[in-house]
Amino acid sequence: MAERIIYMDNAASTRLDERVLEAMRPYYLTTYAVATSEFGHSMGIEAKETLEAAKVGIAKGLGAGVEEIVLTSGDTESSNFALKGVTMAQAKKGKHIIVSKIEDFPVLNSAKALERTGLQVTYLPVDGHGFVDLGELEKAITRETVLVSIHHANQEIGTMQDIEAIGKICHERGTLFHTDCTHTFTRVPIDMGKLPVDLATITAHTIHGPKGIGALYVRKGTPISKWMDGGFQENNLRAGLENIPGAVGFAKAIELVTAEENERIRAIRDALIAKLLDAVPQTVLNGHRTKRIPQNANITFHRVEGESITLHLDMRGVEVSTGSACFSRSLEASHVIMGIGGNHERAHGSIRYSLGRFNDISEVDSVVEAMSDIVTRLRSISPLKE
Amino acid sequence: MAERIIYMDNAASTRLDERVLEAMRPYYLTTYAVATSEFGHSMGIEAKETLEAAKVGIAKGLGAGVEEIVLTSGDTESSNFALKGVTMAQAKKGKHIIVSKIEDFPVLNSAKALERTGLQVTYLPVDGHGFVDLGELEKAITRETVLVSIHHANQEIGTMQDIEAIGKICHERGTLFHTDCTHTFTRVPIDMGKLPVDLATITAHTIHGPKGIGALYVRKGTPISKWMDGGFQENNLRAGLENIPGAVGFAKAIELVTAEENERIRAIRDALIAKLLDAVPQTVLNGHRTKRIPQNANITFHRVEGESITLHLDMRGVEVSTGSACFSRSLEASHVIMGIGGNHERAHGSIRYSLGRFNDISEVDSVVEAMSDIVTRLRSISPLKE
Repeated sequence: MAERIIYMDNAASTRLDERVLEAMRPYYLTTYAVATSEFGHSMGIEAKETLEAAKVGIAKGLGAGVEEIVLTSGDTESSNFALKGVTMAQAKKGKHIIVSKIEDFPVLNSAKALERTGLQVTYLPVDGHGFVDLGELEKAITRETVLVSIHHANQEIGTMQDIEAIGKICHERGTLFHTDCTHTFTRVPIDMGKLPVDLATITAHTIHGPKGIGALYVRKGTPISKWMDGGFQENNLRAGLENIPGAVGFAKAIELVTAEENERIRAIRDALIAKLLDAVPQTVLNGHRTKRIPQNANITFHRVEGESITLHLDMRGVEVSTGSACFSRSLEASHVIMGIGGNHERAHGSIRYSLGRFNDISEVDSVVEAMSDIVTRLRSISPLKE
Repeated sequence: MAERIIYMDNAASTRLDERVLEAMRPYYLTTYAVATSEFGHSMGIEAKETLEAAKVGIAKGLGAGVEEIVLTSGDTESSNFALKGVTMAQAKKGKHIIVSKIEDFPVLNSAKALERTGLQVTYLPVDGHGFVDLGELEKAITRETVLVSIHHANQEIGTMQDIEAIGKICHERGTLFHTDCTHTFTRVPIDMGKLPVDLATITAHTIHGPKGIGALYVRKGTPISKWMDGGFQENNLRAGLENIPGAVGFAKAIELVTAEENERIRAIRDALIAKLLDAVPQTVLNGHRTKRIPQNANITFHRVEGESITLHLDMRGVEVSTGSACFSRSLEASHVIMGIGGNHERAHGSIRYSLGRFNDISEVDSVVEAMSDIVTRLRSISPLKE
C-alpha cells in the first residue's frame, strides 16, 4: 500500500473533524443528563439548554426557526419520516406522491414501500444532466398529490435541481415539497426564509460531523404524523432519548464549514475534472458542468469496469467510489447513470469522486496520473471494442 | 449547590464510561470509512470487519448469533421496529397484538399507533407488584394474535417478568414474543440460546454506552418487514449509514459490565431501600422486593409531592427522578403506579432511584439523610391528612 492514502471516496466527508469530537466530549462525560429531566434537576436543565443551543446552530445553517428542526438518527430516517409522516397525516386528502427517478435510496425506497401499501407514486424522469423537467412536474401533479420529493443535489452525479422553481410549482398546485439536502447542506447556501420548501433532509456525516445524527426540517404548520412513537421529544414529533453529544457535534460541524472552504474544495474538484478529461481519452463527465455541488465529480471511463479501477487505485493508495454509497455491493447498474440515459457499460465504467475538508490540491496530480496509468492498462486488455 | 453531586436518577447510567469513548475514538478519526464501500477499498474492508466484530460483541451479550442483531438508533426505534415490522409482515395472518399496561412508551405508543390503523390491541393488566397474570395472557391470545410484547423489567418500578414462562405460552399458542430488555440487558443474565424469545430491544445508553445506538434482536426466521427504507444495511432489515463508532462503543459498554459490578450495585440499592424504609415513615416500596433489576429502587413517600422532593434534593446535590424518563414533563400520573393499583397521590409521591457504575455505597447515608429531612419538612406543611 502507498505511504499516504488519498481519500476521494465517501470517506473523505465522513472523517470526523477532531474539533467536533472535542465539542461533543463534555456531553458524553460531564454533562450527560437526559434533557427531559429538566424539572428539579440542575444538570437536566443544562442538558435541555445545551440541546436547544445545538438546535439553534443547526437551524441557523438552514435559515430556519429552531422549532422547525426535528433531530433524527440521520438522513435515512429523515427521509423516511418525511415521506411516511406526511402521507400519513394527509391520508384523507389524497394518495399520490411524486419523486424523481434518481433520488437516493431513502426517498426512492420509502416511495416504493408506500406504493406497496396502496399509494400511487409517479417516478419523474430526468434529462441527460439529471434535471427534472418542470413542465413534466407540473403535469404530474393532480388533486390527489400530497407530496413532491425531489433532491436538492444528486448523490452520485452532483447535479443541483432548481428547488426554488420546483417548490414554487408545488405550492401553486397546492402540494407540499420535500427535498433531500444531504449533499448540499452547508456546501451551498440554503435559506428556508426564502425557499418554497416545506421539508428538508439534512445529516451530519457528510460534513465531518458524527454518524448517527441528522435532522428533518419541517416548516411551521406542515402536516406530519409522528412516525417514531414513544415519548414526547422533539416537539412531540420524534420519540427517543435525545442524542445530545450528537446534536452538539452536528452544530459544531455546521459551524466549521465556511464559504472559503467550499471554494477551496470546488477549485480542487475543478482541477481534477479538467486534468482527468485532458489526460484520459474516451471519458465523459456525468452531471452538469457548473450546476453541481462543489465536492463532487463523476466521470465515466469508457471500455473499463469501475470495480477494476477502484481495486487498482486502492493498491496505489487512492480511494474512490463506484455507483452509490448504499448500493455498490449489489453490483447493479447505477439507477442514476441509467436515469440520465446511460447504458450498462457507461454505468459500470463510472467513478465518483467525493471531496472534503481534508483533501488538498496537491493530491490532484497523483490521482490523475494513477487514473491515466490504470485506465490505459485496463483498456489494453479490455474485450470491449473502441 | 452541594460540592459533590450524587446522581441516582437516569443520568447515573447515561454517563459515558471514558473507556468507551477511547474505544470509539479511532473510528471517528482514523478508520472512518463507510462499511458498504468494502469492494476495492482497504479502509472500507476494515470498517466492515470492525462493524462485524462489534456486532459479535453485542450478540454475545445476549447469547445470540451475530446475524440476529439489527443495529438501530436506540431502544425507541428497536421497539417501534419490532411492533410495526412484525405486524406488517404478518398482516395476512392476523390483526391482534397484546402488550402489558405498564410497558414503556416506545412499546405502549407503538401499540396505540397500530390501534389507530385498525389493529386490535389488548392491554394486559398487572398485579400489585407489576406482574402480568400468565392465565390472563393465555386467555387473551387468539388465532388472530400475531405478537405479544411484554417487557423484561419495568422502567419505573424495576419488576422483572418471568419471560421464560411468557415466551413458552406464546409459542405454545403460536404467536411471536417481543420483550423490551432496555433495563435488564447486561444487568441480569439473558441467554437467547435458552429463552423462548423472538425479538428483544436493547440499547447502549443505559449501560454507560453512547446515546444514539441500540439494537433489535431478531431470532433467525422471525417474520419482520423492513421499517426504515433505503439501503441494504443490517442484512437488509434496517437502512441507514452504519454508525460504526456507536457500534464499537456499544460493544465496549457491554464488555465492561461484570457480574461483580451488578452485585455491587445491588448491594448499594438494597442498603438504600432498607435505610429509607427504616428512616422515613409512611413509605412503600413499589415493585417486587427481590424480583427486580439490581439498579432500581422506587419508593412512594405518602403525603408529599415527588416534584417537591426532587427540587429540594437538587438543592442538596442529590439527583433522583419522578415518574418515567420520557413523560415526567407531562405531570400526568405515572401509568405504571396507576397500573399496579396506585392512586394519584401514590403516583405523585413516588421517587425513582437509578444506580450505575459510578455510584458508591458511601452515598447511601447522605441520600437517606437528605430524604428524611426533606420529607419531614414537606409533610409538616402538607395539606394532606395522615
